[in-house]
Amino acid sequence: MKTIKVIKIGGNIIDNEEILASFIKDFATISGPKILVHGGGKLATKLATQMKVPVKITEGRRITDGETLDIITMVYAGKINKTIVAQLQANNCNAIGFSGADGNTIVSAKRPINTIDYGFVGDVKKVNTKAIEVLLKNNITPVFCAITHDENGQLLNTNADTIASELAIGLSSIFNTELYYCFEKNGVLEDVENADSVIENINTQSYKTLKENNIIFEGMLPKLDNCFHAINQNVQKVCIGKSDMLFNTNNKHTTITE
Amino acid sequence: MKTIKVIKIGGNIIDNEEILASFIKDFATISGPKILVHGGGKLATKLATQMKVPVKITEGRRITDGETLDIITMVYAGKINKTIVAQLQANNCNAIGFSGADGNTIVSAKRPINTIDYGFVGDVKKVNTKAIEVLLKNNITPVFCAITHDENGQLLNTNADTIASELAIGLSSIFNTELYYCFEKNGVLEDVENADSVIENINTQSYKTLKENNIIFEGMLPKLDNCFHAINQNVQKVCIGKSDMLFNTNNKHTTITE
Repeated sequence: MKTIKVIKIGGNIIDNEEILASFIKDFATISGPKILVHGGGKLATKLATQMKVPVKITEGRRITDGETLDIITMVYAGKINKTIVAQLQANNCNAIGFSGADGNTIVSAKRPINTIDYGFVGDVKKVNTKAIEVLLKNNITPVFCAITHDENGQLLNTNADTIASELAIGLSSIFNTELYYCFEKNGVLEDVENADSVIENINTQSYKTLKENNIIFEGMLPKLDNCFHAINQNVQKVCIGKSDMLFNTNNKHTTITE
Repeated sequence: MKTIKVIKIGGNIIDNEEILASFIKDFATISGPKILVHGGGKLATKLATQMKVPVKITEGRRITDGETLDIITMVYAGKINKTIVAQLQANNCNAIGFSGADGNTIVSAKRPINTIDYGFVGDVKKVNTKAIEVLLKNNITPVFCAITHDENGQLLNTNADTIASELAIGLSSIFNTELYYCFEKNGVLEDVENADSVIENINTQSYKTLKENNIIFEGMLPKLDNCFHAINQNVQKVCIGKSDMLFNTNNKHTTITE
């Protein structure tokens, strides 16, 4: 079985032109099949402000009304996705940009309204890897933005971490799959104030303890839930850290195990 | 040799939600390999106005400064392209959205500055059909927006009619290729005031005469130049008219021949 790397990058890379250019140059050198998943960064909020569309974020998630959906579709699938694809081409990495609607790759369902109406936010229901496999076989790298669809013509805003884990799970029956979450820290930290206090390994048991002792909280929880979801569904390797971990194995980072 | 249809739609279809939905439903029923190319419609101008970015159009072409390029990338490759792809999926037509950067399919060069500086406008240099062929073989329909790249990381605004003709030419060595330009009229008209005065056939000789007699002028000239460019380079069939011509062969339209 071939190994595939599914790599997710967030705002700390996307929001800075120079850092993005440098990351893309490095990413292009990774040999073997690979997929890039990118979040949205701050650009959508900036555009919403320019267009005087109110930005509503509840519990870290963007409330997505119709106008906001248009904005994120323009920013994520348009500006950011095509900028990344063009830069990959400039670095001799043949890439094709994807939303979950493209190739019907990621089908989601509009989140039901409980206490909060998130609007056009989608929870992943199904991943179809056929189109991706065809491209990977031809040395073409898919680049995913965080938009999915419901198979009835509705685009939906979907968490990029979730897209990365669901793609990794979907591909794990045909590839030895590795999932990398790149963010601004060296990994999950024992002490938020100390950048060097990386917890190098977290397993199901220690995760429970870390949560109980309030060492891990807030924004890290959904990210780690995605990690465990992946590692429990056949993804062989899941790591969190700075993107340097991809290119320098000595770089401290957090590895998730069962 | 299999037959492929390359179909270009413009503002009269894109700018109206109902007409677009109806066209997509019909397009999805076309059997055999097909490619859709879409223009930008009025949405980019609307967004530019909202964002207070001045709109400059000279001789029918948009002057594309950096801010305008961002806007058209967001609108063409983001909003319009993904809306079309999602609606095609809803009609059981498996589609993937493309800019010319995706799959390195359409390489262009920034237009040199003569009397007018068009900014980030690209003239097509090369079409690479490899990624398209792979998808078509797997019954996936490419949907192109009017953005290309220069292979050095720069996205460029490119005329959608030209993209359609260049794609048709690029595919004509492996397919029997048909190119359809859909617009708001029944075809090229002998008398602009009379919607029924369709010139059913134009060849190189009659085109010359029609131009000399000022029967064809202005906006039709670049469109027809694209048609003759295609028909002179191995594209087997080139038609101009309402999109109805695709579904009802009795519908009057203009056919271009050598």
